[in-house]
Amino acid sequence: MATIEQAREALSHVMDPELGRDIVDLGMVRNLEVRGSKVRFTLALTTKACPLQNSIIGDAKQALLALEGVKDVQVQVGEMTAEEKQRLFGQPGQEQMGKAEALNKIKRVIAVMSGKGGVGKSFVAGLLAMALQRQGLQVGVLDADITGPSIPKMFFPKSPRLMNSPLGILPAATHLGIKVMSINLLLPNEDDAVIWRGPLISGAIKQFWGDVFWGNLDALVVDLPPGTSDPALTVMQSLPVDGVIMVTTPQDLAGMVVRKASQMASQLKVPIWGLVENMSYAVCPDCGKRFSIFGPSHADQVAKQLGVPLLGQLPINPAIAELADAGRIEEYPASEFGPIAEQLIATLK
Amino acid sequence: MATIEQAREALSHVMDPELGRDIVDLGMVRNLEVRGSKVRFTLALTTKACPLQNSIIGDAKQALLALEGVKDVQVQVGEMTAEEKQRLFGQPGQEQMGKAEALNKIKRVIAVMSGKGGVGKSFVAGLLAMALQRQGLQVGVLDADITGPSIPKMFFPKSPRLMNSPLGILPAATHLGIKVMSINLLLPNEDDAVIWRGPLISGAIKQFWGDVFWGNLDALVVDLPPGTSDPALTVMQSLPVDGVIMVTTPQDLAGMVVRKASQMASQLKVPIWGLVENMSYAVCPDCGKRFSIFGPSHADQVAKQLGVPLLGQLPINPAIAELADAGRIEEYPASEFGPIAEQLIATLK
Repeated sequence: MATIEQAREALSHVMDPELGRDIVDLGMVRNLEVRGSKVRFTLALTTKACPLQNSIIGDAKQALLALEGVKDVQVQVGEMTAEEKQRLFGQPGQEQMGKAEALNKIKRVIAVMSGKGGVGKSFVAGLLAMALQRQGLQVGVLDADITGPSIPKMFFPKSPRLMNSPLGILPAATHLGIKVMSINLLLPNEDDAVIWRGPLISGAIKQFWGDVFWGNLDALVVDLPPGTSDPALTVMQSLPVDGVIMVTTPQDLAGMVVRKASQMASQLKVPIWGLVENMSYAVCPDCGKRFSIFGPSHADQVAKQLGVPLLGQLPINPAIAELADAGRIEEYPASEFGPIAEQLIATLK
Repeated sequence: MATIEQAREALSHVMDPELGRDIVDLGMVRNLEVRGSKVRFTLALTTKACPLQNSIIGDAKQALLALEGVKDVQVQVGEMTAEEKQRLFGQPGQEQMGKAEALNKIKRVIAVMSGKGGVGKSFVAGLLAMALQRQGLQVGVLDADITGPSIPKMFFPKSPRLMNSPLGILPAATHLGIKVMSINLLLPNEDDAVIWRGPLISGAIKQFWGDVFWGNLDALVVDLPPGTSDPALTVMQSLPVDGVIMVTTPQDLAGMVVRKASQMASQLKVPIWGLVENMSYAVCPDCGKRFSIFGPSHADQVAKQLGVPLLGQLPINPAIAELADAGRIEEYPASEFGPIAEQLIATLK
């Protein structure tokens, strides 16, 4: 028969992948009991909505069932008190969370999301940042796409070197003065792959928030990668996102994935400010005729389903693709984006 | 105050999305108690490793908290006995992990990857499957994009119902006879978000490999989501991938992300068979003129950098987008894909 000590020792090998420490050390194991072949305990998580819950419970069970004489394990899920969490994470600005975070004053956090890849999230995030910056606001862009970052290539002809300061990592500044943080600014080579599982991805995003000295920002635009997994979860759960702008394309397929992303935002109680349709039409360079390149638009319908305004529709323009590839996106006058920017600026005020 | 009957009634609206029946009907609700404002019960799952655990618990809590007078809900997770499971599934051994795997005979596993989103990975995966199937091979498509699955919408006008068998989950079959497995075939509604962190995503992909009764396949095409994180890692580490087809677009930005993905494949020792450039050009429906819609192509250069053949270039065609949105992709003759398919079939032989 196993003893309580053996059970505790077994559990001390179970890690919380997000916090990188074991669950005994983190004070998550409560009311541990061993009765004959049965072991039961309460797992006090930092939040009951912890998406790693299953994985931690699974590991804990495996560890306990490996003990001789243990045949049955019951785990009850609980939640730490606010005070316990504070003790665990320290005071704001200490240790875990960056020093920079306490010094930053960021008025608004706007996430640009889609769920679907390749619809132009980064393009819309970039144009939005440019529009706000041109209005005299101080804007930052946090590139939360760790495995496929697009922001630096758009804004910089040559990757700038990031500087460290006693206050935190200093973001790079574009020609217009937009502050930018992206994993690609930290890689020796822009082609280097970042082959990380979820907890590391989440850790990087949290560092971009907490360890970067953004200073005073009127708005921080967060460019989300596709999907409704770790990066989106981390941004919505760990950053104080004020609102989300959804990006779609005319394809109904994109619409479907955007509806999934919107469902996620609703479940996490983050308001959606509006929908932008990208690649709505192309203009033939030869005859000047507009045509629907991805089939007829479903944007009106998607906006209605989401109950959010359709902020505008943007064309595909080969000239923009070339500017973006050359790091010269700020030379694009973005006249089509004007009405969209106006509506968003009105929302911000 | 709520009664036990009311609590049970509320729980009878909570579905197990995987089994498609409510948790009361499935006999999963045990030891239901109502004490004052507190409700507690044990949720007996078919497997404690159930990846939908959180979602079911969340729905159950929401249903109970909606009852008047209920302020606190505690759910303990348990597991059904082997006998109970047998009764539920009708056949012994059916729910065992990986039973299907031992019965499947899959000759080749081909992963379609890009790193970048929205470049047409699913489109290329679909065309490849169609080309191989039309050659008389038996083909399957495993949709490894759990948060933004595109495959079912392309192949099915209406989402088919999946069947369980004693041998494992039976994949859906397209008009041409291609076997398809995708998370969207398991969701009550195609718009439902799958808000999972990495470990659950990886678990689902492994189940699509090990718990699906694919039977005899000449080739299984795996459609990867964007990124070089959990899904790509799981496919390359846990599935016997024979080769990868990379998909890019003319943008240098896409090229950069494809180079990241290729670096990942090299690091994990999975050979890259070739590169396909999608959205290479558009044809004006008015004047018939071809033009580069995403700027000049970098495909030759990218293929050279990767040291792999450029298998071919595909146009943007609004008619294809419409067929894909309507679940009728198999009506597309895919003549542009012919030379690409030929080269791949030669590689397979």
